[in-house]
Amino acid sequence: MQDRIARVRAEMQRANLASFLVSAAPHWRYLFGFTGSNGLGLITADRCFFVTDWRYQEQAQVEVRNAEILIVRRDLLAVLKEKQILPAGGRLGFEAGHLSFRYFSQLQKSFDQLRFVATEHFVEKIAIPKSAEEIASLRQAGAMACAVWDQVLPFIQRGAKESDIAAEIIYRSRKLGSETEPFEPIVASGPRSALPHARSSGRRLQSGDVVVIDYGCVVAGYASDVTRTVAVGEPPAKLRQAYFAVKEACRLACEAARPGMEGIQLDEVARKHLESCGFKEEFNHSLGHGLGLDVHSLPRLGPESKDVIAANAVITIEPGVYFPDFGGVRIEDDLLVTAAGNEVLTPMSRELFVVE
Amino acid sequence: MQDRIARVRAEMQRANLASFLVSAAPHWRYLFGFTGSNGLGLITADRCFFVTDWRYQEQAQVEVRNAEILIVRRDLLAVLKEKQILPAGGRLGFEAGHLSFRYFSQLQKSFDQLRFVATEHFVEKIAIPKSAEEIASLRQAGAMACAVWDQVLPFIQRGAKESDIAAEIIYRSRKLGSETEPFEPIVASGPRSALPHARSSGRRLQSGDVVVIDYGCVVAGYASDVTRTVAVGEPPAKLRQAYFAVKEACRLACEAARPGMEGIQLDEVARKHLESCGFKEEFNHSLGHGLGLDVHSLPRLGPESKDVIAANAVITIEPGVYFPDFGGVRIEDDLLVTAAGNEVLTPMSRELFVVE
Repeated sequence: MQDRIARVRAEMQRANLASFLVSAAPHWRYLFGFTGSNGLGLITADRCFFVTDWRYQEQAQVEVRNAEILIVRRDLLAVLKEKQILPAGGRLGFEAGHLSFRYFSQLQKSFDQLRFVATEHFVEKIAIPKSAEEIASLRQAGAMACAVWDQVLPFIQRGAKESDIAAEIIYRSRKLGSETEPFEPIVASGPRSALPHARSSGRRLQSGDVVVIDYGCVVAGYASDVTRTVAVGEPPAKLRQAYFAVKEACRLACEAARPGMEGIQLDEVARKHLESCGFKEEFNHSLGHGLGLDVHSLPRLGPESKDVIAANAVITIEPGVYFPDFGGVRIEDDLLVTAAGNEVLTPMSRELFVVE
Repeated sequence: MQDRIARVRAEMQRANLASFLVSAAPHWRYLFGFTGSNGLGLITADRCFFVTDWRYQEQAQVEVRNAEILIVRRDLLAVLKEKQILPAGGRLGFEAGHLSFRYFSQLQKSFDQLRFVATEHFVEKIAIPKSAEEIASLRQAGAMACAVWDQVLPFIQRGAKESDIAAEIIYRSRKLGSETEPFEPIVASGPRSALPHARSSGRRLQSGDVVVIDYGCVVAGYASDVTRTVAVGEPPAKLRQAYFAVKEACRLACEAARPGMEGIQLDEVARKHLESCGFKEEFNHSLGHGLGLDVHSLPRLGPESKDVIAANAVITIEPGVYFPDFGGVRIEDDLLVTAAGNEVLTPMSRELFVVE
């Protein structure tokens, strides 16, 4: 974890920053090990600080590494001023997407001698290549999602309620040791399966439905993210055809993934296949995204992404085909991209499951 | 829901705002009915707009009321400029705590003729008094939490793992119809019960432990939030004494809650009792908070809060006593404050549960 701070400092030097403020919770965890919900990290050329409030005093003592801990009653910023911790007059980098205007404006008022430099994806980029320890957690989260699938499959049947299937997914994930849900599970059946972000509803599964099920587990903060599509009885021909096109697109993309590729290149592998099957318009989202402490992270794999897929990046591959008001299909697996090629972290069958 | 927009407009007039930007997700739901995760609301003197991306097109058509819907491919702000929707040159109010610097800076660049006015708790204040429909949802969320407790109590026993009890809470909540969890359940046993924000761990319950269990259910977006403390076998005398002090503080505060009181006054009722029992330092957090679309909302009930408790506000009452590294006790119920007094929305026994 110490080398992560060194990588931040190297980036700070490149960007000519005297200090860097860490305000996204997953980034505290990544850099300092803190898992609470309120805090602020500060990295300077030679020191690191982590500020949190009194509620997390004990937790911070146990968890925080690489930083001097500062406990405050309420105002996280005031202590930086009181203790004169911020370098005077330098350039302070901050996370533009993770700092609220309220906080920013308070910062500006408190430190009028500083130059504030908005950064984008500063820590996210550093976090793309995963360490052996991170890979072990991601592998475990992937295996856990597979075990959950085996336990949940018997509940997927005609008459079952979408929200009850979601409850089984969460329950079995937790009992198997998942810390939390990386996102609200999607269980979308019938026409709802055409909505890529549908969550679950009170709808009951009917014969002829397909059901898109998208969920994940979390181990030591690291998420898995998988999707399978199940048919309840014989699916309509159009969806069956879509299924095999999506399955092949998934296989081709998984086979092609290599370090050094750009997101757009890998996206193209799946997209071209789906286009050749006549599903150009129906694959209307990106192929996938990086997985890490954030479930939607870098590198992005989409038709406009120049993000490079580094060795030891972990990514999702999730092609889909959707027919509005009718139904949809998505298959998603997680990949560790290695120097030699890649490894599927969610080794579940991609065959079409047909349940009664 | 239409009258909520009218109340926003009345506030806008008072603050001399030509338009108001709604960027907090619970506020979209409150004002426009939208439950998705990406969007932006805009209220002007005579029109309302709701912008979201293509993934939510169908959902927006079904859900959004009181606003013209704008669907974009990616950039939510660009469409406001293209369609010349924002009044030129006026004062635009925005939610300072809910708008990221990234977004704010994009706004500033796109609309250089506008005056940006940071607001705090603008929608939150309007949302304090609840309508009959909102009260019905909050009452149902409270009753659901009670039903969950009855089902979960048998799992609280010596040898049980904290995280397994949390899994049961979530599973049974979902099966009873809870939409999601308003926050990660807290199941904190033994010395961990002294940590007010402990979540759950792999620790197993032991004889002599007390266990603080804090969770809630969600109905139509409205949360309940309850806490009970259970003893595993005979608790240490100090914790037993704390239990009855906390229980009485909870009863006194519930009895005292009336519309028109300030947060500090109600907080004082519980705090004075705990002080008289010798637990001044040990009650180290606020008495409670408002409940609504946000689980931690206005009015705040704490030793510094001048927030007025309006008629038809819903609040939590949650006194606690904590001994670091030893154990803690908290009891929490939800109250609807009515013109005549109040109604407990979580009518569960506050007796000390002692399990084996």
